[in-house]
Amino acid sequence: MKYCSNCGTLVELRVPEGDTLPRYICSECGVIHYQNPKIVVGCIPEWEDRILLCRRAIDPRHGLWTVPSGFMENAETLVQGAARETLEEANARVNMGPLYAIYNLPYINQVHVLFRAQLLDLDFKPGIESLDVQLFGEAEIPWDTLAFRVIREPLKRYFDERRQGKLGFHMGTIEEVRK
Amino acid sequence: MKYCSNCGTLVELRVPEGDTLPRYICSECGVIHYQNPKIVVGCIPEWEDRILLCRRAIDPRHGLWTVPSGFMENAETLVQGAARETLEEANARVNMGPLYAIYNLPYINQVHVLFRAQLLDLDFKPGIESLDVQLFGEAEIPWDTLAFRVIREPLKRYFDERRQGKLGFHMGTIEEVRK
Repeated sequence: MKYCSNCGTLVELRVPEGDTLPRYICSECGVIHYQNPKIVVGCIPEWEDRILLCRRAIDPRHGLWTVPSGFMENAETLVQGAARETLEEANARVNMGPLYAIYNLPYINQVHVLFRAQLLDLDFKPGIESLDVQLFGEAEIPWDTLAFRVIREPLKRYFDERRQGKLGFHMGTIEEVRK
Repeated sequence: MKYCSNCGTLVELRVPEGDTLPRYICSECGVIHYQNPKIVVGCIPEWEDRILLCRRAIDPRHGLWTVPSGFMENAETLVQGAARETLEEANARVNMGPLYAIYNLPYINQVHVLFRAQLLDLDFKPGIESLDVQLFGEAEIPWDTLAFRVIREPLKRYFDERRQGKLGFHMGTIEEVRK
């Protein structure tokens, strides 16, 4: 952020009075521009013992596989956001089920929220952000070409728990990989 | 939003190519300024059969009671945010416990995340955003002077469930009150 979105003046980065963190503050109109984490919301769409994955047609991770998910929009609920992303990316209709996982990604200021969901029919096809959409059984999951660690971790747990017959909720944190 | 925070030019509100919702777009540098829901994170700090509430020293709802909570910051996890708010507002140290409730507030673009927590000691006192901090048993909760519906609903449920000996997770939505 360089300019005030309210009046167009250059902003400065400093700690406001009574605050503890530096914020972008307008030297002209005084507006404090807070920046906060974003929510990414999605689901694991289930059909019998298989789940639906999408192959990404967009960057980052073009060509790799993921569950339907994306940034939550203003004026919607978490469940509405997860259903919208599933419709946009896979043209798939679901009954949203229980909350399955929440992952913090503090190094990129995101919180990922993942539900389980029941596919209502097999009438799915790629949306414009997907190259392909397919159902995968556990043995067929493309573990080596999954797009994100924040997908791999809950999917590993999902199949482990399913084998043990007890699917539960989990909260985790994905840390930055140091190079 | 009126001006581009990247280059200071006036923005226009329109649907970008391939998108479905209007966004603020810079006519000069082309940056699309997405706006997304914010996370409010807090906890119910427990000490034996009582819980800690804070009386707000700031607007909105100055003088009314609430649990320690506030906007999640960049670079922190949900649990870290809830603990930070508890320290800031009540100078109280807690062991963060299980996730207790998530509430969607789509009419103000917020998602509230509430944990249960164990107070580590009774050495709490008001932070600068609080007029008072006190422990309340169920019979003493100031139901008529609670600051927000998004606090009242989970606290009602909390005491109901506690009486039944089964505290669980709940997801809900608070809708705008039509006048």
